[in-house]
Amino acid sequence: MTTRRMRLAASVKGLGYHASAWMIPGVPPVADFAHYRAMAETAERGLFDLLFIPDRLAAALYDVPRGALGRASTVTDLEPLTLLAALAPVTCRIGLAATMSTTFQEPYTTARFFASLDHISGGRAAWNVVTSTLPEEARNHGLAAMPSKAERYGRAEEAVDVVTALWDSWDSDAFVHDTGTGRYFDPAKMRRLDHRGRHFRVDGPLNVPRTPTGRPVIVQAGASPAGRELAGRTAEIVYTVQNELSAAQAYYRDVKQRAAAHGRDPAGLLVLPGVLPVLGETRAAAHDRLRHLREQIDPQLGLAHLALFLGDLSSYDLDGPVPELEDDPAVPSRRRLWLRMAHEQKLTIRQLYQATAIANGHLEAVGTAADVADIMEEWFTEGAADGFNVMSALAPQDLDAFVRLVVPELQRRGLFRDRYESTTLRGNLGLAPR
Amino acid sequence: MTTRRMRLAASVKGLGYHASAWMIPGVPPVADFAHYRAMAETAERGLFDLLFIPDRLAAALYDVPRGALGRASTVTDLEPLTLLAALAPVTCRIGLAATMSTTFQEPYTTARFFASLDHISGGRAAWNVVTSTLPEEARNHGLAAMPSKAERYGRAEEAVDVVTALWDSWDSDAFVHDTGTGRYFDPAKMRRLDHRGRHFRVDGPLNVPRTPTGRPVIVQAGASPAGRELAGRTAEIVYTVQNELSAAQAYYRDVKQRAAAHGRDPAGLLVLPGVLPVLGETRAAAHDRLRHLREQIDPQLGLAHLALFLGDLSSYDLDGPVPELEDDPAVPSRRRLWLRMAHEQKLTIRQLYQATAIANGHLEAVGTAADVADIMEEWFTEGAADGFNVMSALAPQDLDAFVRLVVPELQRRGLFRDRYESTTLRGNLGLAPR
Repeated sequence: MTTRRMRLAASVKGLGYHASAWMIPGVPPVADFAHYRAMAETAERGLFDLLFIPDRLAAALYDVPRGALGRASTVTDLEPLTLLAALAPVTCRIGLAATMSTTFQEPYTTARFFASLDHISGGRAAWNVVTSTLPEEARNHGLAAMPSKAERYGRAEEAVDVVTALWDSWDSDAFVHDTGTGRYFDPAKMRRLDHRGRHFRVDGPLNVPRTPTGRPVIVQAGASPAGRELAGRTAEIVYTVQNELSAAQAYYRDVKQRAAAHGRDPAGLLVLPGVLPVLGETRAAAHDRLRHLREQIDPQLGLAHLALFLGDLSSYDLDGPVPELEDDPAVPSRRRLWLRMAHEQKLTIRQLYQATAIANGHLEAVGTAADVADIMEEWFTEGAADGFNVMSALAPQDLDAFVRLVVPELQRRGLFRDRYESTTLRGNLGLAPR
Repeated sequence: MTTRRMRLAASVKGLGYHASAWMIPGVPPVADFAHYRAMAETAERGLFDLLFIPDRLAAALYDVPRGALGRASTVTDLEPLTLLAALAPVTCRIGLAATMSTTFQEPYTTARFFASLDHISGGRAAWNVVTSTLPEEARNHGLAAMPSKAERYGRAEEAVDVVTALWDSWDSDAFVHDTGTGRYFDPAKMRRLDHRGRHFRVDGPLNVPRTPTGRPVIVQAGASPAGRELAGRTAEIVYTVQNELSAAQAYYRDVKQRAAAHGRDPAGLLVLPGVLPVLGETRAAAHDRLRHLREQIDPQLGLAHLALFLGDLSSYDLDGPVPELEDDPAVPSRRRLWLRMAHEQKLTIRQLYQATAIANGHLEAVGTAADVADIMEEWFTEGAADGFNVMSALAPQDLDAFVRLVVPELQRRGLFRDRYESTTLRGNLGLAPR
């Protein structure tokens, strides 16, 4: 019997998840290709399963509140698909997960992009399926406002089905290359789709052959019931925002049950909560470091960060309580999470942005390497996680430290691999070929 | 005064432009990443300005005439954008031109992809702007049939304007990274678009910084009046299908005049006719090789190739005359070109596909390296070309031979560079930064 091992993704977002990372010494001024390449090489040295690049289809201008405009480094970035394609030939084992929205992209194009990336990387591609949510994203793509959540999820459900069906256009032995008979492929091993859905009409077949492990890996981050249902039905990796064990366990059970309800083996859906490690040589040093990191958040950016889901709070006292706000079902689940945090922990506005503008609601694991490994081990063994999406407050230094300190600790405990098991992402994740 | 030098693009289409290339010894069985990488390295060794990858948004099934299905290797391929992004870190000087259609892609996405590729490659990206034409492409993207040509060109014109405006979202000195004041960028050096057009609504700004030479290079292949007008107004490189000097000269004058009429320096629009060299140690050997290549075209694929623009001719005698067919303004200019060729040269159906299924209507330059250089020199000096888009009948061998034999001949004549002038595509092409 094989030991269950932790799966690790390195979530790489520009110069780090800390909103003012760019102002902190040791962080490079710009997240260019060399920066991402170094992050990929570090993650691969750390035997991470995959590199994950989030995305947004608009510049994050943060022009609320007044004075915030110009202060954020996250306004521009490289585009994930091109970035990961460029990282493919300069890495050899790590998986490459790019975010691509279902809201504005044609599924035929999405299917081609990821199938091509999967070929180029020798079976290491993953598609992080998202729906776009921001009004700025709508206004860059022909719309005055975002479609309703139901509409976006309906489109996403259908898009995933079309994309996976396109990936199944060709049997893996369809291409016979028979120069004797002049037959390059066997038409009996080709499947047209002739899909006629509510959102898409796609005849197929895909003009990319079946990929090395059958299909790219499907990643999602469903939080709402609609998101969880999509993940339970179609995802092979699900990211989740959790900061408390019992809630993480409940989430874990829920999506596994949804997978089972769709007739899937729940082990084929890997749950990876985000974790943002803050390391120190001692526990006290780590907590000092976290406090220092929190104080380094530019208050304008802290308010801008809160404004994304809570609106402009700049007319309130920064050191006063977070005002009572209505829950808004049209806004992503992050709003609910923050309002609950502020209420339960009696946080001031400053404390709320300090608590959320780095890890963005995810678990902060603060302490020595052993402490961080303890937390991860507990979540892993107590039914809250199959692994983690490791977020760096500051890039590259926090990923470097994690690989140098926490990875060996996890290996000593037998929780993480000593070497890659496979050249493909499915092989390393223990997922069956499709 | 600098000498005017020839610009060379290597047009790489799978295993070569020969429809049955895959059946010919020495051609690999599949156009995988290693194949494209070898082609890129050869082209860069040959000091080519750029690598050009055509594209089509559907599998080229060729299921007309009956029996053709399964015989073509062009049914699948890697997707150009991911392919060129992956080639960026393993090449260092050659330009990377990917085809992306304006018909089904949002301009915000297109702008991001190419800006990102331009950053990753250090200023070597080019966008080959096309409109999609095939009914199969429409049926993979939600439509029962293609929009009219006027509609497609209207959309293309607006898409190019939006994409270039998005590339201009940021001044090159917009990002000040001032940790003292907390200012990452200067909002005065950012331009929103707030574009409201007939086809697109795009607020901007782009979430990618200004690229190394200001903008990726714009490439087109306008042949019809609408296509020429788009090229004259916006393109920096134009590919063209020409097989006769005086027609090529007329085309050259026409698009240069159109550029001038738009207030542009005509030298900023480089005209690169396609050329398919067929080399031999002697002229006779080269003509033998061409005859042999023509005879190696699978007749089913020859008919399938003609069917694309002329319809199914399989009920006619293969060795009889090409039937009289109506010109059809809805079909691309290739139909007109072929019908004229067949009529003027009194070709049989077999002769027509043999004459067109390799070079696809482009100039075939047949002979010794000196002969091929003579033809290229004549077109270059006689006002028909600023350089060439070099097509390989068989890949990689024909590009290898061109680099080994023709490039040194062009260099001896002072027509082509001895080393790259720049690390950027604009620098090598002699185009001003934008």
